[in-house]
Amino acid sequence: MPVQNKKVSDAVIKRLPRYFRYLADLKENNILRISSKTLSEKMGLTASQIRQDFSCFGGFGQQGYGYNVETLYNEIKKILGVDKGFNTVIIGAGNLGQAIAKHAKFAERGFLLKGIFEVDEKIIGQKIKNIKIQHISKLDEFVKNTRVDIAILTVPREVAAKTAEKVTGLRIKGIWNFSAAEFDMPDDVAVENVHLSDSIMVLGYRIKNK
Amino acid sequence: MPVQNKKVSDAVIKRLPRYFRYLADLKENNILRISSKTLSEKMGLTASQIRQDFSCFGGFGQQGYGYNVETLYNEIKKILGVDKGFNTVIIGAGNLGQAIAKHAKFAERGFLLKGIFEVDEKIIGQKIKNIKIQHISKLDEFVKNTRVDIAILTVPREVAAKTAEKVTGLRIKGIWNFSAAEFDMPDDVAVENVHLSDSIMVLGYRIKNK
Repeated sequence: MPVQNKKVSDAVIKRLPRYFRYLADLKENNILRISSKTLSEKMGLTASQIRQDFSCFGGFGQQGYGYNVETLYNEIKKILGVDKGFNTVIIGAGNLGQAIAKHAKFAERGFLLKGIFEVDEKIIGQKIKNIKIQHISKLDEFVKNTRVDIAILTVPREVAAKTAEKVTGLRIKGIWNFSAAEFDMPDDVAVENVHLSDSIMVLGYRIKNK
Repeated sequence: MPVQNKKVSDAVIKRLPRYFRYLADLKENNILRISSKTLSEKMGLTASQIRQDFSCFGGFGQQGYGYNVETLYNEIKKILGVDKGFNTVIIGAGNLGQAIAKHAKFAERGFLLKGIFEVDEKIIGQKIKNIKIQHISKLDEFVKNTRVDIAILTVPREVAAKTAEKVTGLRIKGIWNFSAAEFDMPDDVAVENVHLSDSIMVLGYRIKNK
């Protein structure tokens, strides 16, 4: 059982889902063992980087003949919390919110959509994946009856900070933020930003400077 | 006129769109000048970090009384290529592809959607934002008549590598990849990955380890 180290660096944390994806692939292809060398080649890292990353969690005891894929997969799954799962709600059922609601992969990864909230009366009452879109004013009531770990913010930028504050007040501990706004949250709230515009602008820069 | 330095680090490149967003905000609020100190406080960076970032592009000559917001905005706009603009096509008009097609902000940032391509006959012929969804087999013909800088890949993971290869063969120089696959591309093709599942898994990790 790996030891959780609280001081794992951001860079390592960001690589964990990649390891998880690669190991899921290996598992699917019935590969039982993999050396850190082979894994590193597949992932474009160095073998020592991988050993160092894993050492943050106790090392997963690679012997001379490599890591056991299934064991490693399960350990990383546990580290990421994917084994226990997370309940999510989407706030903002516009185009992006709806696309995320329909995205099958998140459920496979342990992120279960429990509710969808909106202010637009025209779409309230509609169903996505059998979940009825509710008015945002129902969120307070909802979280009393259903554990919600993550609020997926797909609201317009102008109302994002206010919505994030509301969510935090309801003791939801994580915000997956698509709103292009940035906000300071209390230390016990985790925020992960997906700034799509930033990402495409970085791509533009790279094309221009090739 | 700032000098473009080819060796700008990834970390700096990734901050450019954030600078651009903040400066756009300041401009919108009719703020004419800003010191690196104030800008740094707004952005959660240090003032020296900001000066160092800007020095990669020639410095933008801050005097004692701060940066001229409009000038700085325009310089960063130029550095990002937003002034000249980029033509894009979406490949894969599923939920996510459609949501991106409808996302107004990308056009504001200079990313103009020129075409949408699909394999699903059920949706070919439909229009999104006045752009008719075409069969992917029409892409070759399309790029002969229209400059395409960026292919936005929102195809399923299984066909992503093949699609990326096809796109590269058509001399499209940038891939904005939502497919959760990773691929090696020739050096003259820029790839920017948006791994949504990775992002929510990182959030899950952070919640679990708060």
